Amino acid sequence: MNTRVLLRERPVGAIEPEKTFEVVRAPMDAHQLLEGDVLVRTLFLSLDPAMRGWLDDKPSYLPPVKIGAVMRGGSMGVVVESKNAAFAAGDLVDAQGTGGWQQYFVDRKARNLLKLDPGTDLLAAMGPLGMTGLTAYFGLLEVGKPRAGETIVVSGAAGATGSVVGQIGKIMGCRVVGMAGTDEKCRWLTEELGFDGAINYRTAGGAAGLDKALREHCPKGVDVYFDNVGGDILDAVLLRLRMRARVVLCGAISQYNSEAVAGPKNYLTLLTKRATMAGFIVFDYLARYAEARAQLQAWLDNGKLKFKVDVIDGLENAPQGLLKLFTGANKGKLAVQCAPLPSKL
Amino acid sequence: MNTRVLLRERPVGAIEPEKTFEVVRAPMDAHQLLEGDVLVRTLFLSLDPAMRGWLDDKPSYLPPVKIGAVMRGGSMGVVVESKNAAFAAGDLVDAQGTGGWQQYFVDRKARNLLKLDPGTDLLAAMGPLGMTGLTAYFGLLEVGKPRAGETIVVSGAAGATGSVVGQIGKIMGCRVVGMAGTDEKCRWLTEELGFDGAINYRTAGGAAGLDKALREHCPKGVDVYFDNVGGDILDAVLLRLRMRARVVLCGAISQYNSEAVAGPKNYLTLLTKRATMAGFIVFDYLARYAEARAQLQAWLDNGKLKFKVDVIDGLENAPQGLLKLFTGANKGKLAVQCAPLPSKL
Repeated sequence: MNTRVLLRERPVGAIEPEKTFEVVRAPMDAHQLLEGDVLVRTLFLSLDPAMRGWLDDKPSYLPPVKIGAVMRGGSMGVVVESKNAAFAAGDLVDAQGTGGWQQYFVDRKARNLLKLDPGTDLLAAMGPLGMTGLTAYFGLLEVGKPRAGETIVVSGAAGATGSVVGQIGKIMGCRVVGMAGTDEKCRWLTEELGFDGAINYRTAGGAAGLDKALREHCPKGVDVYFDNVGGDILDAVLLRLRMRARVVLCGAISQYNSEAVAGPKNYLTLLTKRATMAGFIVFDYLARYAEARAQLQAWLDNGKLKFKVDVIDGLENAPQGLLKLFTGANKGKLAVQCAPLPSKL
Repeated sequence: MNTRVLLRERPVGAIEPEKTFEVVRAPMDAHQLLEGDVLVRTLFLSLDPAMRGWLDDKPSYLPPVKIGAVMRGGSMGVVVESKNAAFAAGDLVDAQGTGGWQQYFVDRKARNLLKLDPGTDLLAAMGPLGMTGLTAYFGLLEVGKPRAGETIVVSGAAGATGSVVGQIGKIMGCRVVGMAGTDEKCRWLTEELGFDGAINYRTAGGAAGLDKALREHCPKGVDVYFDNVGGDILDAVLLRLRMRARVVLCGAISQYNSEAVAGPKNYLTLLTKRATMAGFIVFDYLARYAEARAQLQAWLDNGKLKFKVDVIDGLENAPQGLLKLFTGANKGKLAVQCAPLPSKL
């Protein structure tokens, strides 16, 4: 039997797990392996804010997930059966977006699989060494271009990407202030991850309160703003930009469930401050993933980079789990465990 | 007697000429010239959209004009009396922001005056060789960085800055499409200034009509958008950006009279298209004005750059004239003639 989660209908506004998705349990599709094919069992799924965008029937950097198709997503798995000389049963693999939300899948000619070293820490591979870590790395360093002594603000700071952004910022010698939605997350940022400050945007007291908190935490203003959330927080930070500031547009999770996106009404501070707002997509840096992973691994090894993974148990709980990203319930990387780990791990 | 126009009160929303400004006719302030001083008679005032921003009591790139002070503005004049060896009666000068809206003024130690060659075309000096021309030059070339073959869209295209932006775009080998508010302006752009296309945004048919017109005029999408207006037009163009497009924020005249600026709700296309939105202020390029003016003059001389000035007669009509910028009544540069030109011009 193969459990698969299909897109049932496109959400209007927020995802409704039972309505948006359909969990199907059925015998495996005939998966007669041809020469070069590999059968993989999914171990971990990655849950990411960008998934909300893939559900909309709108042009974007990837085509929308089709109705009735298996939900797209990053995952890590183990090879069950292989007709490909490069893979053997028991090998750990990064499915690199193929596979998605299903228990088993066949990668024809193993076109998309990336073989991982035996004993690889799959949670690190999905988190700080995966898409969210790479997004933090390239977004901050290549788009934000922070210089030592500058002030960085990151929103969604307790999330998988934001938490890595802030820690890289500290490694670069910057003052780092995070925005998060609970006091407990804020404490995690300052007490465990080394952020210089953290602002609980839910209790800050609206736009005026956010502005006051930003003035306190960023007395010189903001040189780099790494935005994962959009909306009111983006507007608040725009008002505090320094001359020649860089706003890195990584996401806008506060807006993903809205039918009409709230545009940043303070965008004209970009003009008066000669500042830049730039978008990027991590895929553009594919050729440099290895370099980034080596650096991130070195920081993990020397303890400068820490991470946390919130693991949900069971593929069938992925739809409900996805909601946690939008309610701010998770801390660090959010993942779904779909099968017990092979014993040799 | 000296006629001066003072800021009476800060406008909320649109400027109301009689309420916002006060025209005062009074004997000259005792203007005993000290060593180094120069007395200037204003010949032309420049009217510019940015002036609206100077009336608000908000932090910006220049301090707000004070209540009761002479309205700030660019102007060209003629020296009436000089105690400065560098200036003689009859010399033409660019007041470079000193002086403002008054018939006569003294520049202490001639700190701000720029002497112009005898016979200088003052209207060219205020238009394509003045702030608006320099804004077009640096904004397009240094921030927009157009490459031959790319598509440029410029809004406020029949204005002093926009009309120069489009013509420089053509000189650079780009496809240039202008946005303007009357069919007559659109004809001027395509028939006289060489734009490849022009869209009358008032009759385009709302957001859907603008989108259709942009698809027709920019079949490959938009590489550089030079924005003078903000609002719905900015949103429409954001949807048509190509990969790695550059949005040059020069102004947002559609929003200057609004208490709440409408943020660009389609700003997330910056993310999916890896595009950049950047602000700039022409003053930052001060060290390169001479280089830019030489190039602009060369283009004027060889006929590649054309311009038009809409001249309003009489300093006392400046407040009413300023409104033309916001109703879209002017074509090209808007100026006020404050005195007859010296006969030798």
